[in-house]
Amino acid sequence: MSELLERTVAAIGEPDAAASAAVQAQLDLKTKPRGSLGGLERLAVRIAGIQRTATPSLGTPVVVVCAADHGVAAEGVSAYPSSVTAQMVANYAAGGAAVSVLARRAGARLVVVDCGVADPLPVPGVLDRRLGPGTASMLRGPAMTREQAIAALETGIALAAEELGGAGCVALGEMGIGNSTAAAALTCALTAATPEQACGRGTGLDDAGVARKRDVVACALELMSDPGIPLDAVGVLAAVGGFELGVLAGLALGAVGRNIPVVIDGYPASAGVLVAAALAPSLPASLIAAHRSSEPGHAIVLAHLGLQPLLDLDLRLGEGSGAALALPLLGAALAILDEMATFASAGVDDSGR
Amino acid sequence: MSELLERTVAAIGEPDAAASAAVQAQLDLKTKPRGSLGGLERLAVRIAGIQRTATPSLGTPVVVVCAADHGVAAEGVSAYPSSVTAQMVANYAAGGAAVSVLARRAGARLVVVDCGVADPLPVPGVLDRRLGPGTASMLRGPAMTREQAIAALETGIALAAEELGGAGCVALGEMGIGNSTAAAALTCALTAATPEQACGRGTGLDDAGVARKRDVVACALELMSDPGIPLDAVGVLAAVGGFELGVLAGLALGAVGRNIPVVIDGYPASAGVLVAAALAPSLPASLIAAHRSSEPGHAIVLAHLGLQPLLDLDLRLGEGSGAALALPLLGAALAILDEMATFASAGVDDSGR
Repeated sequence: MSELLERTVAAIGEPDAAASAAVQAQLDLKTKPRGSLGGLERLAVRIAGIQRTATPSLGTPVVVVCAADHGVAAEGVSAYPSSVTAQMVANYAAGGAAVSVLARRAGARLVVVDCGVADPLPVPGVLDRRLGPGTASMLRGPAMTREQAIAALETGIALAAEELGGAGCVALGEMGIGNSTAAAALTCALTAATPEQACGRGTGLDDAGVARKRDVVACALELMSDPGIPLDAVGVLAAVGGFELGVLAGLALGAVGRNIPVVIDGYPASAGVLVAAALAPSLPASLIAAHRSSEPGHAIVLAHLGLQPLLDLDLRLGEGSGAALALPLLGAALAILDEMATFASAGVDDSGR
Repeated sequence: MSELLERTVAAIGEPDAAASAAVQAQLDLKTKPRGSLGGLERLAVRIAGIQRTATPSLGTPVVVVCAADHGVAAEGVSAYPSSVTAQMVANYAAGGAAVSVLARRAGARLVVVDCGVADPLPVPGVLDRRLGPGTASMLRGPAMTREQAIAALETGIALAAEELGGAGCVALGEMGIGNSTAAAALTCALTAATPEQACGRGTGLDDAGVARKRDVVACALELMSDPGIPLDAVGVLAAVGGFELGVLAGLALGAVGRNIPVVIDGYPASAGVLVAAALAPSLPASLIAAHRSSEPGHAIVLAHLGLQPLLDLDLRLGEGSGAALALPLLGAALAILDEMATFASAGVDDSGR
């Protein structure tokens, strides 16, 4: 590991229990039976702990979409060709994608990052953080070098420093044709999941496609078992890759190091964050799962991270769309805290508590 | 039944399948794998069908909170005294309650209706639609007369005509100390549920309180079985009551009759709408369940109505708070439809579809 990465990982601890307790105490004075806003109260309490303050705020939320191409896409594991990655990056930046619409509605700033699209289109408004023209196929050896994996993590850490000023939370999304295969391989390597459990239809594979994806993941896991490859979290990331997933992992570390709650989207983004959690075991307490995707592997990742999703709407688009959709719930949780009357201020009898 | 009620019920049919299909066809052109926005797509499709247009809109959503007192509260079935109903009505109107905060955040207009609070406080901004100073106890005979039950339904129908101009949806909430007991009795009478299944902790009952509530509901059901009482939906509403629940049932009928989707909140509001669905069997197709409450009876009502909730956040406050919290999801669903680029307009390869 590099010095920056080591320092960042070492700085990640547990949320501030005192801030959380102070917020719960405030909520208990509000005009409602104690605890009756359930998950909304827990969300406010969690944000306070992560931000380490009894007066949490979302500021201007940031939605980051990291995109890159995957060599494994050439193995027939996706319903779409790799060229769609760059086309969708242009669509995010132009404001026409689902995440563009949902981030706008949530009052969030959208940051689009090219982490290594194979053939980038010349579009304004995309940050260039390219680690290469896509990864190598995980079937032909490691998807990236160990140096590239560390560089991806460091890129994410640097992005957190550069882009999250004024943000009270960051939502993480991804794009990369083939990356649900990378997500499945990461999930198998970092949890007890099997390829059968971890591989789903992605953007729309048929049964034969899913079977091929399972075989690819099984072969990649086999390659990874070469005793010459150190199988720490960085080694796993290098082996099955995802430039964008490595950058997202770094972003999660960098954001939490700055006391900024990290809202994770679907399967690939969550699998990327698995790498970060393997490096920093306290990290999951500072994550917020936006939703449970219909990709079966996502539930495995969320369970491994110990996270309860806010939404369960059968989403499977990725690109941060589910995370952006959940942001208004975070805003609502903090509005309850900021704006509700207390029993005393409203003159409501609180004997029932 | 009255002429107004009969006419309103007769006008309720199924949503417009052509409008729904047209919206799904539009969504299928957007830059995402088909169906990948799952529940969000189904929501847009549903709203279009209910509004009977391929260009659905929320306009200015309206959140209606109907409040009334319950004679049954004197039987020790609530953690709070009846006086809290009027105090909370004042709190809604003053803007300090959870529903006030959440409706404001959702850009919705909040309408607070006194349907029969025992001892109303002099507060501005509350509509006076009082049907009496609270119902009688369902343990001592019918909670209201059949005439009152019809008047409650008609009051709701009239409110829909008066208050929903410019609204593309209406969210229904309630307040009334004791009304989760009325909800449980309605649920038992109108579904196959038993008092054991239908009675929960409400605003915070202990085990002895829940046991008392079950006994009260069982006795009320026994009283209702008197062969002299016609046990149609109006008869059930009269027997176990809830002025506010009857008004909400009427509001649901009136809103759907005007092609306005009805977003239902927690247990009492949903149980009130059960009465409306018993009168108009096509009604549930025009309802949207905001959330599944932690009150066990709520899941029974939702299953009876055939509704999948949007949120499952362990809420149990009522007053329309969960319905207001869900409104941004409706807005997001329609924004996807209105604002997303198509594959053609964004120049994205759609061969994967």
